[in-house]
Amino acid sequence: MAHVELHAELTADEPTLVEGLPGAGLVGKIAADHLVETFDMEWVGSCFCDGLPKVAVYRPDDTTTMPPVRLYEDADRDLLVLQSDVPVSPSQASAFTECLVGWLEREAVFPLFLSGLPEEKSDVPGVYGIATGGAADRLAATDVTPPREAGLISGPTGALVHEAGARDLAAVALIAETEARFPDPEAARAVLVDGIAPLAGIEVETDALVERAEEIREARQRLAKQMEEAGDESTEATPIRGFQ
Amino acid sequence: MAHVELHAELTADEPTLVEGLPGAGLVGKIAADHLVETFDMEWVGSCFCDGLPKVAVYRPDDTTTMPPVRLYEDADRDLLVLQSDVPVSPSQASAFTECLVGWLEREAVFPLFLSGLPEEKSDVPGVYGIATGGAADRLAATDVTPPREAGLISGPTGALVHEAGARDLAAVALIAETEARFPDPEAARAVLVDGIAPLAGIEVETDALVERAEEIREARQRLAKQMEEAGDESTEATPIRGFQ
Amino acid sequence: MAHVELHAELTADEPTLVEGLPGAGLVGKIAADHLVETFDMEWVGSCFCDGLPKVAVYRPDDTTTMPPVRLYEDADRDLLVLQSDVPVSPSQASAFTECLVGWLEREAVFPLFLSGLPEEKSDVPGVYGIATGGAADRLAATDVTPPREAGLISGPTGALVHEAGARDLAAVALIAETEARFPDPEAARAVLVDGIAPLAGIEVETDALVERAEEIREARQRLAKQMEEAGDESTEATPIRGFQ
Amino acid sequence: MAHVELHAELTADEPTLVEGLPGAGLVGKIAADHLVETFDMEWVGSCFCDGLPKVAVYRPDDTTTMPPVRLYEDADRDLLVLQSDVPVSPSQASAFTECLVGWLEREAVFPLFLSGLPEEKSDVPGVYGIATGGAADRLAATDVTPPREAGLISGPTGALVHEAGARDLAAVALIAETEARFPDPEAARAVLVDGIAPLAGIEVETDALVERAEEIREARQRLAKQMEEAGDESTEATPIRGFQ
Amino acid sequence: MAHVELHAELTADEPTLVEGLPGAGLVGKIAADHLVETFDMEWVGSCFCDGLPKVAVYRPDDTTTMPPVRLYEDADRDLLVLQSDVPVSPSQASAFTECLVGWLEREAVFPLFLSGLPEEKSDVPGVYGIATGGAADRLAATDVTPPREAGLISGPTGALVHEAGARDLAAVALIAETEARFPDPEAARAVLVDGIAPLAGIEVETDALVERAEEIREARQRLAKQMEEAGDESTEATPIRGFQ
Repeated sequence: MAHVELHAELTADEPTLVEGLPGAGLVGKIAADHLVETFDMEWVGSCFCDGLPKVAVYRPDDTTTMPPVRLYEDADRDLLVLQSDVPVSPSQASAFTECLVGWLEREAVFPLFLSGLPEEKSDVPGVYGIATGGAADRLAATDVTPPREAGLISGPTGALVHEAGARDLAAVALIAETEARFPDPEAARAVLVDGIAPLAGIEVETDALVERAEEIREARQRLAKQMEEAGDESTEATPIRGFQ
Repeated sequence: MAHVELHAELTADEPTLVEGLPGAGLVGKIAADHLVETFDMEWVGSCFCDGLPKVAVYRPDDTTTMPPVRLYEDADRDLLVLQSDVPVSPSQASAFTECLVGWLEREAVFPLFLSGLPEEKSDVPGVYGIATGGAADRLAATDVTPPREAGLISGPTGALVHEAGARDLAAVALIAETEARFPDPEAARAVLVDGIAPLAGIEVETDALVERAEEIREARQRLAKQMEEAGDESTEATPIRGFQ
Repeated sequence: MAHVELHAELTADEPTLVEGLPGAGLVGKIAADHLVETFDMEWVGSCFCDGLPKVAVYRPDDTTTMPPVRLYEDADRDLLVLQSDVPVSPSQASAFTECLVGWLEREAVFPLFLSGLPEEKSDVPGVYGIATGGAADRLAATDVTPPREAGLISGPTGALVHEAGARDLAAVALIAETEARFPDPEAARAVLVDGIAPLAGIEVETDALVERAEEIREARQRLAKQMEEAGDESTEATPIRGFQ
Repeated sequence: MAHVELHAELTADEPTLVEGLPGAGLVGKIAADHLVETFDMEWVGSCFCDGLPKVAVYRPDDTTTMPPVRLYEDADRDLLVLQSDVPVSPSQASAFTECLVGWLEREAVFPLFLSGLPEEKSDVPGVYGIATGGAADRLAATDVTPPREAGLISGPTGALVHEAGARDLAAVALIAETEARFPDPEAARAVLVDGIAPLAGIEVETDALVERAEEIREARQRLAKQMEEAGDESTEATPIRGFQ
Repeated sequence: MAHVELHAELTADEPTLVEGLPGAGLVGKIAADHLVETFDMEWVGSCFCDGLPKVAVYRPDDTTTMPPVRLYEDADRDLLVLQSDVPVSPSQASAFTECLVGWLEREAVFPLFLSGLPEEKSDVPGVYGIATGGAADRLAATDVTPPREAGLISGPTGALVHEAGARDLAAVALIAETEARFPDPEAARAVLVDGIAPLAGIEVETDALVERAEEIREARQRLAKQMEEAGDESTEATPIRGFQ
């Protein structure tokens, strides 16, 4: 019964998917939500995978009932977004991971996974990229650089990247320096401009993310707090310092 | 072995079911109990679903033994009520959810799910509605408005609505502003008058709910406390504030 | 492998079984133990059901090793007693319940389940009865009255009564007002005289229970403490106060 | 995969097995270790049963790696010992119990199970015996007396005795009064001299146990502490005081 | 799906594997990492076994994504190393153990398992060896001595040695005296020089381990802290003091 369900056939051609699960700094969620809103993307499918919370989501002034983890499409831009209104429990991530990555593989979707890297930040948050399944070429064609330090991505997104690697699925994981404890719209902006835009071949206006940064922080505080309480287990990139 | 068991064939025609599991403000339970009492509804079936507490329930001056989650029918009004004397553990809700929603689907029952939305309340509690499986039309034919803010329904009722959505079953979820920590007969009255009555096509006297509000609060305090202890996990609607 | 095992064929004719699992006030255990002792009943079988503690029980001046939950028979009185030296974990009760009630059904045994109802007690503890599977007639033929208030029986005995109801097995549950925190020989006496004697068609001397009340309390204090620590989860009847 | 594995065929004839799992006072372990050492018994097999800790054990000045629960044989004395270097978790005892008792049954081994009974001790610790599967005769042929009080054996050894009873396997459980919180070489001596020697038909020197009592206590303090932390769940005999 | 996966056929001939899971003093991890770095070993395979954390690992200045537990080969030296960037949960070790040891058996690999023995250390940490499956000969051909005291190896490495013993697989476990609470490069050096070098037939420069000891300690502090928090459950050798 666990599956990704589409309302209709995808019309996007070899689409790129931006994964937006909540993690450190809510980097992925803020970036993914911004794409859905800015491009007025269409809700085309839902994840009915084991391990996802069974809750009913609704939007203002709309009687539509939605599951919490959904797929949105912009067919013209060959773009998909995975939007989530809930954190995914890392202990439940395994079933979700097989469900989603299996679907990506069957549909020949190119996923961009997003993770925050909690850091003392300088002016502009750094964005780094790693690849699986031969997607290093795609990464090399952009200005995204490899990580400067060794590290690991944990949490649900770490499990997704691990699964992509295990299946040799072409995928990229973007790692953005972020504040750990607060929603970080600047980090989301950096990952959109420096990573998602060139890899997905899109242009996206991000001024609103900076102008409305304070508003976004407040709006997302509750979700960020849930993430923080989950502690080490939510998605984040962690440096592995020292020789190897 | 897990199933909904009827004592006899239902005689109601395309009945509407009012779900009365205990949740925030006990809104659903108070409303459902009021219907059973006011219409002197007949006990016609029981839920023997995995995940429900195995306890034996009895009524005053009656030697009948009943399971804790039961179905009542008013055949003339084409009305069913799901009455529960116990909270349903959210961690156990999954099995119950498949058991009940599967039965609703097979019997072509139209369910009204009920959830409280803990809020600073103004004079009259607001009642909002969302729909699954094409029931938006039914909702549009009433004065029930969509939610004013984004949000999500969690707990056992959230799982029921999620399952109805996943199966594309026609259903409505009514969300009533409520006090979070105390039984709230006024919120139950609002959901009965504004939502259940027009959607189920019934008329129901609710003065007693207001007159006897204090008595009801006291009577239900114990169950409400159990709910409160279950914390975030019991059924409630939660606003998702901010842009999406 | 889970089963009720008899050493020999039962010779009792359509026997009545008195269930003596430890619960609130140890009402059932004290009553059951009293019957086994007074009638010098014969150990005829044992419960090897999943969910029962795997411990080895022994008696003074006897090298016989027994399992902790056993069946005793008085063939002349057509009487069976279920005696237990250990509490049954409510979370494990489900497997035991199916095992025991399935056996009762196959053997056409008429069970009397016993539960305490923690109460401020007046002079003589009240004893109330509820029935499943058409046993209301048997109850009506006695002076046992229905409960005065709504309520529910929880714990292992609640699960047994629930299972009897689900299988439509003729059974009676006797509910005796009891002290909650201490072994209550008076409540056990009331349930023996007012409920078990007329329903099982036996006469039983109970003076010893009153004369030796203090001794019994002390002897059972340890088991009662285990019960109390199990808290709400051990068997007890709980009033459901208020309108329904 | 779970099984008892022998390095070679047993040469003992209808052997008696002394069970030496750690429990109250470490009575069984001290007695079993003493037999292995005194008779220079040969390691002939190992328990690879589910529920046993997967650790690697070694001895001084020896590169041999052993599993933690092992069988030793003295073929001339028709004696087997079950030696354990680790406590067995009671919650995991069920799988181990079926694995070991099934093997005892198939191999026609006569087991002596050992349990401490925490008590205010007088001069010489009392040793009591109970039997399963018709072994009461063997017990009656010795000076071991039945217990003076009712009681129950819990923990892994209680589960072994329970399983022997359920399978009607001839077995004896010896219960020795012991200090609860400290290793008790005197209790082990009493069980060796009064119980194991006559039942296994052997003679065993035990002076060393008394002379080296202090040394033994210290050596075993760590294991005893693990046992104590496991609390009520480790093997011990518990009196059931009062009428039954 | 759980398996060890190689990128290519192994070219090493009857290779020796050095196991480098994090444990007491990080002895095994520091030694294994040193071999991978010093010999510039090639990443040839990965462990996709149940029970291993699903995280994505990356290296500085490299876009390659790796799973956390990997195999490295030096074909000329007939050497394999098992490198891990994460601790393995002991409660999850069972599945990993069967997965890895099964692979070692099929590929005829000779494993060297590494464990720290927390001790007050004298000048040079002692290194002791135990063997399974007939590998005692290989051990005897070196200067590695058997342990001076009885003891047991627990944690994931203890489970690996136990499994090797249960399958009668030729293997050696090296036990090095170590500091318990801090990364101990000296203990790693001792195990490399005294144990791994002669057993694997290699020569390895270890001066860097001593010169850079402070740097290594700091780099590994975080992982060591995770190990310490896991407490008794992480891999370590524990003395069993006293007679047996």
